[in-house]
Amino acid sequence: MRAHDIVEGVPTVTADDPVAAAVRLMARTRLPGLIVVDTRSVPTAVLPGTQVLRMTVPRSHQAHPSLARTIDEPHADLFWSELGDRTVGECLPDRPERLAVIAQDATLLEAAALMGRARSPLLAVVGDDGRLLGGVVLGRLLAALSQASPEG
Amino acid sequence: MRAHDIVEGVPTVTADDPVAAAVRLMARTRLPGLIVVDTRSVPTAVLPGTQVLRMTVPRSHQAHPSLARTIDEPHADLFWSELGDRTVGECLPDRPERLAVIAQDATLLEAAALMGRARSPLLAVVGDDGRLLGGVVLGRLLAALSQASPEG
Repeated sequence: MRAHDIVEGVPTVTADDPVAAAVRLMARTRLPGLIVVDTRSVPTAVLPGTQVLRMTVPRSHQAHPSLARTIDEPHADLFWSELGDRTVGECLPDRPERLAVIAQDATLLEAAALMGRARSPLLAVVGDDGRLLGGVVLGRLLAALSQASPEG
Repeated sequence: MRAHDIVEGVPTVTADDPVAAAVRLMARTRLPGLIVVDTRSVPTAVLPGTQVLRMTVPRSHQAHPSLARTIDEPHADLFWSELGDRTVGECLPDRPERLAVIAQDATLLEAAALMGRARSPLLAVVGDDGRLLGGVVLGRLLAALSQASPEG
């Protein structure tokens, strides 16, 4: 099996989309991450779900976890709604990591190795022109590997 | 809301369990990670799904991704079945990272901050005695935050 055998259509966001909309999209679709594309549908970032969630946490609380403990409960529930119109692009890491992108003919072993290395439960699958074809998610990859295994 | 409001029962593994069984457990339960506990039910590791998957990838391929590309397709599908009886404990990272563990009275902001920092879509929730009460998963946390938000 290869990546194109387990690729699935995934909704994407652009750097101009509001963070709040991106997080809601992920919550609604139950995806383990989000792919950011440019106007040509070329992936510019593949964000693990935890890093999308991180966009919603005020920077001061990211660096000083003890601060999060000082926020009282009702306010802690609402921090998300204070995002305003911050965009995905504004929240992307300053130093982008290696893109979790694979070619459609990549093997499952390549996909698994990249997921582990990039710590991303979502990979962007691209065609020869670099444009997004879809995503490979951890659950689907595990299921495929589980079936391939004789004891599965 | 606090962690105990969104905690759920999650299956666990011990360091003595075979990696193959741990991966199958994750595939079957669709959990985004696994919690490793000791004989007293105290969490000793919280593994993001990508790191559980990584346990199945031969070390040589983790370090040299180009090697994965040289493995032919049928063999690439079967690498998983060659794990033999390697245990979870043998595959844990040499230098354990900060445990993704929170107290049951942690706020959702604390939970979100820790998930983002630890890059773990699964948190272990413990009682005052340090024993595991259950897990908080990214999807459930997102849903709770989404409901709490006025625009949700």
